[in-house]
Amino acid sequence: MKILGAQLTPVAFDDPPLLNVMGVHEPYALRSVLRLQCEDGIVGLGESYGDAPFLEQLGKALAALPGLDAFDLPALRDSVARSLGHAVITDAHGLIGGFSANKTLASVYSIIEVAAMDAQGKALGVPVVDLLGGKARDRVDFSAYLFYKYAAHQNGRTDDWGEAVTPEQIVEQARRMIGQFGFGSIKLKGGVFAPDVECATIEALADAFPEHPLRIDPNTGWTVPTSIEVARRLGGVLEYLEDPTPGIEGMAQVAREARMPLATNMCVVSFADIAPAVRERAVGVILSDHHFWGGLRDTSALGTLCDTFGIGLSMHSNSHLGISLAAMVHVAAATRQLTYACDTHWPWKTQDIIEPGVLTFENGSVGVPTGPGLGVVLDEDELALAHERYAACGQTARDDVTYMRQYVPSFTANIKRW
Amino acid sequence: MKILGAQLTPVAFDDPPLLNVMGVHEPYALRSVLRLQCEDGIVGLGESYGDAPFLEQLGKALAALPGLDAFDLPALRDSVARSLGHAVITDAHGLIGGFSANKTLASVYSIIEVAAMDAQGKALGVPVVDLLGGKARDRVDFSAYLFYKYAAHQNGRTDDWGEAVTPEQIVEQARRMIGQFGFGSIKLKGGVFAPDVECATIEALADAFPEHPLRIDPNTGWTVPTSIEVARRLGGVLEYLEDPTPGIEGMAQVAREARMPLATNMCVVSFADIAPAVRERAVGVILSDHHFWGGLRDTSALGTLCDTFGIGLSMHSNSHLGISLAAMVHVAAATRQLTYACDTHWPWKTQDIIEPGVLTFENGSVGVPTGPGLGVVLDEDELALAHERYAACGQTARDDVTYMRQYVPSFTANIKRW
Repeated sequence: MKILGAQLTPVAFDDPPLLNVMGVHEPYALRSVLRLQCEDGIVGLGESYGDAPFLEQLGKALAALPGLDAFDLPALRDSVARSLGHAVITDAHGLIGGFSANKTLASVYSIIEVAAMDAQGKALGVPVVDLLGGKARDRVDFSAYLFYKYAAHQNGRTDDWGEAVTPEQIVEQARRMIGQFGFGSIKLKGGVFAPDVECATIEALADAFPEHPLRIDPNTGWTVPTSIEVARRLGGVLEYLEDPTPGIEGMAQVAREARMPLATNMCVVSFADIAPAVRERAVGVILSDHHFWGGLRDTSALGTLCDTFGIGLSMHSNSHLGISLAAMVHVAAATRQLTYACDTHWPWKTQDIIEPGVLTFENGSVGVPTGPGLGVVLDEDELALAHERYAACGQTARDDVTYMRQYVPSFTANIKRW
Repeated sequence: MKILGAQLTPVAFDDPPLLNVMGVHEPYALRSVLRLQCEDGIVGLGESYGDAPFLEQLGKALAALPGLDAFDLPALRDSVARSLGHAVITDAHGLIGGFSANKTLASVYSIIEVAAMDAQGKALGVPVVDLLGGKARDRVDFSAYLFYKYAAHQNGRTDDWGEAVTPEQIVEQARRMIGQFGFGSIKLKGGVFAPDVECATIEALADAFPEHPLRIDPNTGWTVPTSIEVARRLGGVLEYLEDPTPGIEGMAQVAREARMPLATNMCVVSFADIAPAVRERAVGVILSDHHFWGGLRDTSALGTLCDTFGIGLSMHSNSHLGISLAAMVHVAAATRQLTYACDTHWPWKTQDIIEPGVLTFENGSVGVPTGPGLGVVLDEDELALAHERYAACGQTARDDVTYMRQYVPSFTANIKRW
């Protein structure tokens, strides 16, 4: 099935002022939507980052695709590698561990692989999960993703969720999110306030939701001693502790003292990071993310790899739209080693570029779409609106730090702050 | 696509008296052929071992398949696991490292997975390689597989190849095999004669074929000191040294002194063996084999795993027929990390159970079949003959040791003999 063309559409959607170690989410989250035009009118869909440095590299790769076969994934990967040379995306926001040349290749290839597999599934009349070996589960569990947040953006835009800067407000956020979507696990984005406040927040959540597994992710906001102190305080409370401190060596020091497994999507972010992490026994759970782990097939292989070394597998989320959620659900359903509830930012967004109805949360889980390919349909009107929003918003790369300075002029990123 | 039934046919084919560490190949090699009957008249093909202990476990697993979906591989695997409980196949011949409960599950599941994927490909009209992610290569290189051998079986049956018990006869065997099939690499099965003779044979091959990468596989016939001595003598001559001595610890001791990588299909034979092998730096190349590594998808994931830890990937062969060769070619073609020429016993057999013409060697390589599924068609007449041969031959499990005693009454296996 020959690839005839590739159409890339950068889009933006309203994002609430969610707080993290780097500052606060800007008014818009940027994404890119790929339409891979193939023979017989088949169009494969992909979604990934929308930052300018990513779009630049992806654009180079897309130009070389016409004429290649959408079933021939190794040739697509080779083509991307040739287009990129040894280019490295510069990563402003830093929340997924930076980009090497390998990770740049894995990231640019990923959106193309997803679109090619969507096209394959559409051509064959089977869902992507079947191309990945079939469903290990019919529904994929997700975790409630709680954020400390401000009530309003600098432009005055508010949202339904209001302010959340105290343990009580976070518990209230959890009640509402769980009430609405039924999540059975809870993750709190930390690295925002002093560890004592964030521990108190987790403890309040544990009191309010005694049956829900809990996680906190300070995005390397803490030093090794602080991480060990938190691990002691929250021993028996946390399901896992995510990226408390930077680097494999630092994580290994914490892991030796922590009762719960350490999870990461910051110090193990490519296959090259696994050998040192295994050697140092630095992590107990890897948060996979097909957007930067080289696509759906490599993410699935990561499951085998983690299982082989006794490492758990969960799933990381960036702010995303429906094409990405569908891809996440397909690969999570096909990967039997993925036994934790996955992360998603889904409830925080109010806009999308796919027709609604396929991806719905019940009891915190999403059923695997049954239509061909990813099983989602582009909403051309919403896509056009989202692209207009992108063009109008003036954002071209994520920069939570600079935006935070509009709230706190002296702000610098909280990496290892405590 | 519902599975309606499963038909298992044990078969036998004429095998020459090839020598190895356990003795000599018996007059017949045993295999099993699986026909997985699915809806719409689709029949998926699989091939694996034909020994009684394997057939017994496989029979239990097959009985539970009807009603399951041939696209739902995780459910097939779960079903096999339930059928087997913690059964362990007892492995008489010992050339692939013995069977654990995990490896038993991986082996029994494998033939079912292959048949299910053949059925999937036939239902969708695509070759299995496309279901595995597409071709990393159009043709798969194989190595000439040289054996010391006797001229005749005890029943008087001879073959075209004659006796090969000296370096000169092996060089002659190589000339003929390479002349006929064009192999670009050479593997010698060792563990038969004293290491000095086998080293001299490799040296004679190096003189005669200076451009051909060479390998020797004594199937753990040597002690650690002998293995180190051989590694020194053949440094710069061998591409890799395969299973010189038993166990990860022994291999690690040899690896520390050897210039060439050590390869194995005996001490790393399941995912559970990989962590200790990595820790001890025991092996440089894993010889994959979908028949006991859990099928085509797990073999493909093994490629990612090996690459992650800087371990090379090649492919092991047992005596096999065309369904297995087709499966080997599909998975090797889809696995970009598999960069060595694969092993095959193919030239040693004169009979098959598939229609000829699809799998032909040119310049030592086989093109990936392009038909749907595995791309091979069962020859019902030949299958019936092969089954009659099985029923008549009286062999029910491979036992090279006992058969060797008809040639050398005092024979015991050569494991660590030298």
